[in-house]
Parts: sequence; structure tokens; C-alpha cells
Amino acid sequence: MGRWEPNSRARLEQAAHELYLDRGFDRTTVADIAARAGLTERTFFRYFADKREVLFGGSGLLHDLLVESVGAAPASTAPLAAVVTALEAVGDSLFADRRDGARRRQQVIDANIELQERELIKLASLAAAVAAALRRRGVPDPAAVLAAEAGIAIFRTAFGRWIAEDSRTDLAGHVRESLAELKAVTAGG
Amino acid sequence: MGRWEPNSRARLEQAAHELYLDRGFDRTTVADIAARAGLTERTFFRYFADKREVLFGGSGLLHDLLVESVGAAPASTAPLAAVVTALEAVGDSLFADRRDGARRRQQVIDANIELQERELIKLASLAAAVAAALRRRGVPDPAAVLAAEAGIAIFRTAFGRWIAEDSRTDLAGHVRESLAELKAVTAGG
Repeated sequence: MGRWEPNSRARLEQAAHELYLDRGFDRTTVADIAARAGLTERTFFRYFADKREVLFGGSGLLHDLLVESVGAAPASTAPLAAVVTALEAVGDSLFADRRDGARRRQQVIDANIELQERELIKLASLAAAVAAALRRRGVPDPAAVLAAEAGIAIFRTAFGRWIAEDSRTDLAGHVRESLAELKAVTAGG
Repeated sequence: MGRWEPNSRARLEQAAHELYLDRGFDRTTVADIAARAGLTERTFFRYFADKREVLFGGSGLLHDLLVESVGAAPASTAPLAAVVTALEAVGDSLFADRRDGARRRQQVIDANIELQERELIKLASLAAAVAAALRRRGVPDPAAVLAAEAGIAIFRTAFGRWIAEDSRTDLAGHVRESLAELKAVTAGG
């Protein structure tokens, strides 16, 4: 199995992001990534099934955390409040101190149509999972679907603002700001 | 060019939908569709570039109508109100009397993962175009993006309810109902 390398996963991820940005996603191989990280391909495959999973492997955890957190909200919590609280929790846990990596990943995605499509599909499946979690709380449709879609729109907006700047506002703070903006937009519509 | 066939486009569309539902999208050919409609392949290609365009060819018109209508709203109209008015106009013009076709098309899409992904991408590009139309009205981000995303969520919800039933409520009526539901969801969040 080779000797233990400290922080291999993060090194592989950073090497992959840099190569995807320099050469393009399509022209980068797993061998390139491992070499740049100073690790073996075998080590790469201990963490990722393929080069696309470097970008999307985290979405399973995001999905699980969101669904769990929506389910754990007090019964009296309104649907969108449950979703927003879950998004704040995700911001605090999953993304804290990971802004540079998140920004690089987004640059990679923005540079490749196929990856953008994959990201859209992941986000749509996240919205569907959140809507299902709301239904299990007894929220009827269309409120469940609309709260889930609104939540994902809030998340995307907050995420985009969080990685666009280096302000001290964390992702959870941007989520709260985006919720306030959405409330203003819908109240005015 | 062959003699003129009345209503060829609608006949081809209906034949295609039926075959996609019976055999699956992947196992249907343009020759099958033309034969079922009692027309030639040459006539098919006068209306559609390929068998996927039977399902997605209308999205260009939907895109143009929405963008134009958002741009034409009075300057004082709030962002989401401009989007919802555009959606109602689309419902009244593009979809009036087309519920059966819209329902069949949705059944085809729901049965095929690849088509579902294509539909998601089309809707995301519609949201981006609506956000751009709002920006041209002077709406800043993130209000432009949030109003556009909210509008598309309203449209999807309204569309799903419209094709799910045979009530007398038209698509525009469902759009207004979904807007009211979204307002309730965001006010409660």
C-alpha cells in the first residue's frame, strides 16, 4: 500500500484543480494528477473513482448533510426555514476554511460545458432530495418543491458571492443575506 | 417537395410522442415516425433537425417570447412581477389548447434520464436568459438571478399541475397560483 502520505486527498485535489485549469479537464489524466501531487496513481484511486469524482465526490456528503438537517428541524419550523437552517449548517461544517478550493473548483466547472451540465444535474437532484425530505416532514406539494427550489437558488447565489470575494462573511452569512434578498424579490413580485 | 399535407408538423409530433412512449426514445427512428404519421422522412426533416428536436424544438420560441415579454414590461414593474407576467403571456399564447401534447411530451421526458438532463439544461439556460433580460432592465444581482430562478420554479410547478389534471384552470392561472404559493413559502421562511 506504500507509506502513509500526509494530506494526500487535499494534495490530489489541488493538483487536479490546477491541471484542469492549466490544460483543461479533458486533457488531464489521472497519471498527470498523481505525478503533480507527488503521489502514485494507486493512491489517487484510494480516494477517487476517476478524475471527475475529484470535482463531484463531495456532493454525496452535501446531499446527506442537507437531508439529515432538514429532517432534524423542529416540527414547528416552516419549510423554507428548515431548508435555510440546513444550508447554514452545511456552510459552517462542510465549507468552513475551504474557500480557495471551492473557488478553484468553480473555475474548473465554469470552463467546461459538460462539467456545467453535470453540476446542474447534481443541484437538481439535491433539490429533489430536499423536497422529499420536506414531504417526510408533512409538507405538501407544491410548497415542498417550491421551498426546495428556493433553497437551492439561495445556496447557488450565496455560494457565488462567497467565492467571489475575500470578505469575512462566511458561507452561512451569505445564505442569510440571499434569503433576505429572495424574500424582498418575492414580496415585491 | 411532394404535395402539401395538412397539419404535418402536429401529425409528426404526435406520431413521435406515441412511438417514444411505446418503444422508448432510443429505439425509435425518424423513418418510424414518418411512417406512423403517413408522411415521408423528407417531410420530417422539413420541420425537425432530428428526433430530439421534436421534443425540444419549441424551447427557442419559449425563450424568445419570455425574454421579449420581460423586456416589454413597464419600467416600474418589480422584477418577479415582470417574469410572472411573461410566464402568463407564454401560457396564454404558446400553450393554449396544447395540454394533451404537453402531457405526452412530459411522459416521454420522464421515461428517459438523458432527456430529463436535456430538459434541466434547457430550463437552466432559460433562467439565465431571463436573468439577463432583467439585468437589461437595470435589476442588479442577486435580485435578477433570484427572480429568474423563482420564475422558473413557478413555471415548472405550474406546468406540472396544469398537465396533471383536466381542470378548467389554464396554465396562466396555475402560474398565478404557484406565485401565491411561493410568496407564502418565502414569507414563512
